[in-house]
Amino acid sequence: MQLAMTLDDLNAFLDAQFPQVANEFEVMDVSPMHATIRANIGDKHLRPGGTVSGPTMFALADVSVYLATLAMIGPKALAVTTNCSMDFMRKPIAGANLRSETRILKLGKVLAVGDVLIFSEGDDRPVARAAMTYSIPPER
Amino acid sequence: MQLAMTLDDLNAFLDAQFPQVANEFEVMDVSPMHATIRANIGDKHLRPGGTVSGPTMFALADVSVYLATLAMIGPKALAVTTNCSMDFMRKPIAGANLRSETRILKLGKVLAVGDVLIFSEGDDRPVARAAMTYSIPPER
Amino acid sequence: MQLAMTLDDLNAFLDAQFPQVANEFEVMDVSPMHATIRANIGDKHLRPGGTVSGPTMFALADVSVYLATLAMIGPKALAVTTNCSMDFMRKPIAGANLRSETRILKLGKVLAVGDVLIFSEGDDRPVARAAMTYSIPPER
Amino acid sequence: MQLAMTLDDLNAFLDAQFPQVANEFEVMDVSPMHATIRANIGDKHLRPGGTVSGPTMFALADVSVYLATLAMIGPKALAVTTNCSMDFMRKPIAGANLRSETRILKLGKVLAVGDVLIFSEGDDRPVARAAMTYSIPPER
Repeated sequence: MQLAMTLDDLNAFLDAQFPQVANEFEVMDVSPMHATIRANIGDKHLRPGGTVSGPTMFALADVSVYLATLAMIGPKALAVTTNCSMDFMRKPIAGANLRSETRILKLGKVLAVGDVLIFSEGDDRPVARAAMTYSIPPER
Repeated sequence: MQLAMTLDDLNAFLDAQFPQVANEFEVMDVSPMHATIRANIGDKHLRPGGTVSGPTMFALADVSVYLATLAMIGPKALAVTTNCSMDFMRKPIAGANLRSETRILKLGKVLAVGDVLIFSEGDDRPVARAAMTYSIPPER
Repeated sequence: MQLAMTLDDLNAFLDAQFPQVANEFEVMDVSPMHATIRANIGDKHLRPGGTVSGPTMFALADVSVYLATLAMIGPKALAVTTNCSMDFMRKPIAGANLRSETRILKLGKVLAVGDVLIFSEGDDRPVARAAMTYSIPPER
Repeated sequence: MQLAMTLDDLNAFLDAQFPQVANEFEVMDVSPMHATIRANIGDKHLRPGGTVSGPTMFALADVSVYLATLAMIGPKALAVTTNCSMDFMRKPIAGANLRSETRILKLGKVLAVGDVLIFSEGDDRPVARAAMTYSIPPER
């Protein structure tokens, strides 16, 4: 299988379609069925004690499977998340950005499934894992 | 089982501990093992097409189980989410606020488990369901 | 919405299509979007210490959402489970049968989503919760 | 981190503690934080159409994370599953055994989290993914 979108394509798509969060996420690497994405953590993502909030980690997992899927099928803005599971396993490092590593496990005509590990930059122990299912809109 | 925190206690706790999101959520009703919480939806919660973003629904589910648990055990700010599952079942109504209905299914010494249905205000079909597990910090 | 299958229809379908497990499960009650199902627990379902095994509870949740869905759409043997989440919250009572209470939360053309609470008979505290998604085969 | 149990230890533990299912599962390989386990598929694991049943795949995922955890902490028969999520992504090959590949992602004092990919032997596309959380009993 080949990539339908390059690294630059994915970052440009993010800027164009999701301007309200585009500066929070950056695609660092993409290859067939894999992507590496960074979340830039600022004050608004933190909870008391300096830890990164759960919704911030959810948002990173969600955008990661979305972009790794689009990398394979092209820019279909209307794909929607239908299911998510997450385990929050360790406290993220205060002040560190997050990095996600995503694998697409299934790329069907109707559903795509990916799993994600999230790391604090500078630590190789995952802070969270997630699996996300996306529903792919039918061709017109 | 009795409530350890009233409706006013919960809203005051939210304002004091989570000032960055306190104006987004409001506890509408609380009873033993149940809570009803509203999410005030604004432009920053929307995605292309006017739909409410996934992270917004995750945040509502997360705060809902947290507050319904604290209502029973008192204000322990350090409880942390350890697991989440969600199904996104329908497109939320554009421009409508969200309402969550939460049941606490288990309230143990170490773990609390709750499930949540999320509705668009004015519609009785759930837009999402979630289950969240919270780890409760040990007494000092 | 109306039922497409009665209580007797569902039990007869279970006997005909799943003879290897039909004597383990019995539909006790069905109404639109709801079902109550009993699992008859025997030695083969137990683990060391007398507790009911996880796979037995999974099987009950799985068949419960399946039958509650078929009750609404009619006997389509080819519906398949695509996703499951479960929390195992309490140790089931040794030697007691299990009872599931299922709600169908979404009944779409392609996907059905249901949630399930599982109880030991004689206790009103849930031992497990589950959510299951079924993919519904297209009409021919 | 080092292994607390060898491949032979794990298979002997399975035979001794779970005689009712021991002939269904075989640990093929173990290394720190990883295990490979085979499920021997027979008629009783099949559903109409020849596909492997959901509860069989759940049982394989469950035993896989359990044994991969025990390989690190030693034979604690009382560890219990507290949470599971699974995606069923492809129809298993009729008549083929299953193989699981398990990673332990967190090994805490209280909770262990592992993720699992399940394959039909002879095919490198996963048929299912799972994440399981085990509660580890306190030291006496």
